[in-house]
Amino acid sequence: MAKDAEVKTAVEMAKEQRSISVAEFFEKNRHLLGFDNPTKALLTVIKEAVDNSLDACEEANILPEINVEIKEIEENRYKITIEDNGPGIMKEQIPRIFAKLLYGSKFHRLRQSRGQQGIGISASVLYAQLTTGYPAVIYSKPKPKGKTHMFHLKIDIMNNEPEIIKEELIDDGLKHTGTKIVLIIEGRYVQRYHSPDEYLKQTAIVNPWAHIKYKSPTGETFDFPRVVNKLSKRPKEIKPHPYGVELGVLIRMLKTTKARNVSAFLQHEFSRVGANSAEEICRLAGIDPTEKPQTLTHEYQEKLLKSMQKVKLMRPPTDCLSPIGENLLKEGLSKEIKAEFITTITRDPSVYRGIPFQIEAGIAYGGELKKEMYSDQATVLRFANKIPLLYEPSGCAITRAISSIKWRRYGLDQSPGNVPRGPLIILVHIASAWVPYTSESKESIANYPEIVKEIKLAVQECARRMLMYIRKQTRVKRETQRLNIFKNYIPLIVENAKELAGVKANIDIEPILDKVIKKDLIDNGKD
Amino acid sequence: MAKDAEVKTAVEMAKEQRSISVAEFFEKNRHLLGFDNPTKALLTVIKEAVDNSLDACEEANILPEINVEIKEIEENRYKITIEDNGPGIMKEQIPRIFAKLLYGSKFHRLRQSRGQQGIGISASVLYAQLTTGYPAVIYSKPKPKGKTHMFHLKIDIMNNEPEIIKEELIDDGLKHTGTKIVLIIEGRYVQRYHSPDEYLKQTAIVNPWAHIKYKSPTGETFDFPRVVNKLSKRPKEIKPHPYGVELGVLIRMLKTTKARNVSAFLQHEFSRVGANSAEEICRLAGIDPTEKPQTLTHEYQEKLLKSMQKVKLMRPPTDCLSPIGENLLKEGLSKEIKAEFITTITRDPSVYRGIPFQIEAGIAYGGELKKEMYSDQATVLRFANKIPLLYEPSGCAITRAISSIKWRRYGLDQSPGNVPRGPLIILVHIASAWVPYTSESKESIANYPEIVKEIKLAVQECARRMLMYIRKQTRVKRETQRLNIFKNYIPLIVENAKELAGVKANIDIEPILDKVIKKDLIDNGKD
Repeated sequence: MAKDAEVKTAVEMAKEQRSISVAEFFEKNRHLLGFDNPTKALLTVIKEAVDNSLDACEEANILPEINVEIKEIEENRYKITIEDNGPGIMKEQIPRIFAKLLYGSKFHRLRQSRGQQGIGISASVLYAQLTTGYPAVIYSKPKPKGKTHMFHLKIDIMNNEPEIIKEELIDDGLKHTGTKIVLIIEGRYVQRYHSPDEYLKQTAIVNPWAHIKYKSPTGETFDFPRVVNKLSKRPKEIKPHPYGVELGVLIRMLKTTKARNVSAFLQHEFSRVGANSAEEICRLAGIDPTEKPQTLTHEYQEKLLKSMQKVKLMRPPTDCLSPIGENLLKEGLSKEIKAEFITTITRDPSVYRGIPFQIEAGIAYGGELKKEMYSDQATVLRFANKIPLLYEPSGCAITRAISSIKWRRYGLDQSPGNVPRGPLIILVHIASAWVPYTSESKESIANYPEIVKEIKLAVQECARRMLMYIRKQTRVKRETQRLNIFKNYIPLIVENAKELAGVKANIDIEPILDKVIKKDLIDNGKD
Repeated sequence: MAKDAEVKTAVEMAKEQRSISVAEFFEKNRHLLGFDNPTKALLTVIKEAVDNSLDACEEANILPEINVEIKEIEENRYKITIEDNGPGIMKEQIPRIFAKLLYGSKFHRLRQSRGQQGIGISASVLYAQLTTGYPAVIYSKPKPKGKTHMFHLKIDIMNNEPEIIKEELIDDGLKHTGTKIVLIIEGRYVQRYHSPDEYLKQTAIVNPWAHIKYKSPTGETFDFPRVVNKLSKRPKEIKPHPYGVELGVLIRMLKTTKARNVSAFLQHEFSRVGANSAEEICRLAGIDPTEKPQTLTHEYQEKLLKSMQKVKLMRPPTDCLSPIGENLLKEGLSKEIKAEFITTITRDPSVYRGIPFQIEAGIAYGGELKKEMYSDQATVLRFANKIPLLYEPSGCAITRAISSIKWRRYGLDQSPGNVPRGPLIILVHIASAWVPYTSESKESIANYPEIVKEIKLAVQECARRMLMYIRKQTRVKRETQRLNIFKNYIPLIVENAKELAGVKANIDIEPILDKVIKKDLIDNGKD
């Protein structure tokens, strides 16, 4: 047979095709996970470990005690140690949790948590291995009086599976239950905005029930004390809401459900669907409620979805959320920021694409902020599920919402489309059962209109209160000036009047002063 | 034994831990792949399929003929058909190429190509399945006279493996060799900037050897003809350069290499390392060149890396790149844009993190652009490996580089930190063996300083030429005005002179005019 160039090429090409492990993929694309540069990498490692510790403690109902230490062991090389008093991890799970990407408990649950992808901590282990070649060292103790499991772990990159370098059961490990991770990474430590210092400070603000101790590479120690001795409300897992499900997912659910008929399927697999709603959905779709879910044709699968989204249902349950709460948020802010005025708000939960979320906001104004501000623009503190977001503000829904507010109405200067100017800090927290981050590195939030709208409403309410405060301050100042004028001039007037009237007696001017002041206050509508 | 809350929780938590398939991950995070909203999704599907077709044709040395059709079959539901005359795909590979994420031939190769991740086309199949539930229909014919393979494919999401719904060998399939894909997706068609129309127009500009036919949802047909009958230079695969390798990767390479000793390892696995350099690297690292690569300790692995990056080596070979070329780029621009002045430049290749890249730029100025421009800011066309980038301009290295130029020096107005104002189009193309995209959806390029610098130099050179053109135009205009003045006034002066001198005869003023104009031109330094 004659040689055929095209055929040969298709054959040749076939030989080059192969699978790419997800570890390989992220090793080559590590910037997608927040490891773009050494400064950011250092922050990302701390962030992923601390977020995991906080999640674990809260899940086990333990008030978090977290110790963070960063030590420079060589130029641009750091040893990072993070220890918590959480529930610990079962021995069998340790290798996969720390040394396999896309492994975890949070991805498949609809419930607020810091982690949600099953990538973060194993990506940090991947980064350590890539930049310094050292394995991660993990200590974990699930029983208070038991021994500590110790592992040296690497990732088998080509297969995305854990590689156990060393495994030991040690006596003198962790004191109580908990987990400790030690990583050696290439990094760079800065004390500016993108520092672990700033991340931990902001973490303390939105997690006032956590006690965080931190020793920085310069040897400084920071103590972020616990402000309240009670964890925030524990979020509950919910089922997906019919309004947010997509056809492909519905088809898969219909195929794999254990429910015997469509009605039971709708009631068991979704939230807010009772017997009546299930019947109505079936009726609308022209489906027999007793039909087996697996037997629906494509046509009826589509009809089912359309009916699910047409029927009037309650909004999804919001106990999957765990907001910080107005009061705690205010305490957290007051603890770390010396402002003269602080206000916070927690809005009612709302929904985007069937997923519940809730916005909290706060404004801190004036006081020491008047000295501190390096730029004249307001500082924006962004948080998602109690995690500070330090990078990529410009693409974030929070920045967009704040910039879209007409700040002149609230007494602040603003260049068009920007954050306002003034001695203030604007804080926004989005709590959600699934935060729509714009990248795996969880740095900013996608611009869903429902989310942007809620953020705007929350910040505007805080801004309104701030405006009232500023107005009151201005008025108080103006009145103090007026009173000073009275105080200075009334004695002179009294003296002159006495002279004109030929009165010699000493007149007590205090009651006169009081009267005038009182009248002035009434005229100006003050109490 | 007493019940221990903490222990129970660690056990409970262990039960919830499980693997997440990469298909599941991207199904839930589809915005990471460019499927944020229906408008973008439609564009992304077209883009991934066309990019693959162009890559396949070029790899098989075939001048691309690509047919694109988008048909609205229901409200917000589109049938997309893309057919190419490429080499086709071997039957065994079809299911995995189209229905398994992270599968392909381009990820492991250091060579310029449009695709590089093994995600794009299977993500499109995933998106179709998720939003409409329909399988992808694939036709492929690798032998010109053979039959056509036809597949109906879905992705088994929980396992990220192809699910073959239907498989047939058909007689009346594709005409020549090639591949055709048909997808039914949820989408939205717009005719504005983010449209498939714009994407295809820009694709035609930087792929002047491709013939693209397109039928839009409105029934309009577009024909982007081929301008040159020759493909651009075929890029060659290269080995990694010692300067760009990281410790973790080096350790893995040392472990798995077939080379018998360190010297051979260095020479075979890296580019630009000959026997002498290998010897010098070993000497610097204190390693015996005949040692087995697998036996190096961690200490010596680190020393090896440091020495590899210390030794003076040639820059990586640049035949892995395939720029468009100044002339073709100019032809491409001229074909699609009616400007009065067009200039293009291809810079010499450069290197970031050991990876070769090359910048090309062009400026089109004036002409019809003076009418067309909707905004007064310059339009920036961004390209990476011959793919138009239509989204996320603000975070992109190209926008950053252009905005950092002081455009007033080139005669254009500019608000600080922005793209210049004026009737111009600025085009930038980065060709690289690995483009550092900021996300999987390949919309913008990471800000590596080396890349930003090269872009700036390329654009500045084009701007300088444009400034010369503008100055020349201004001079010509000014001189035309001067000559008009002479032409208007000289006859009057002559008449008056005649009158004063009492001359009645008719004087031919043409020679006088010529003389004056000639003198004026000499005075103004013109030829």
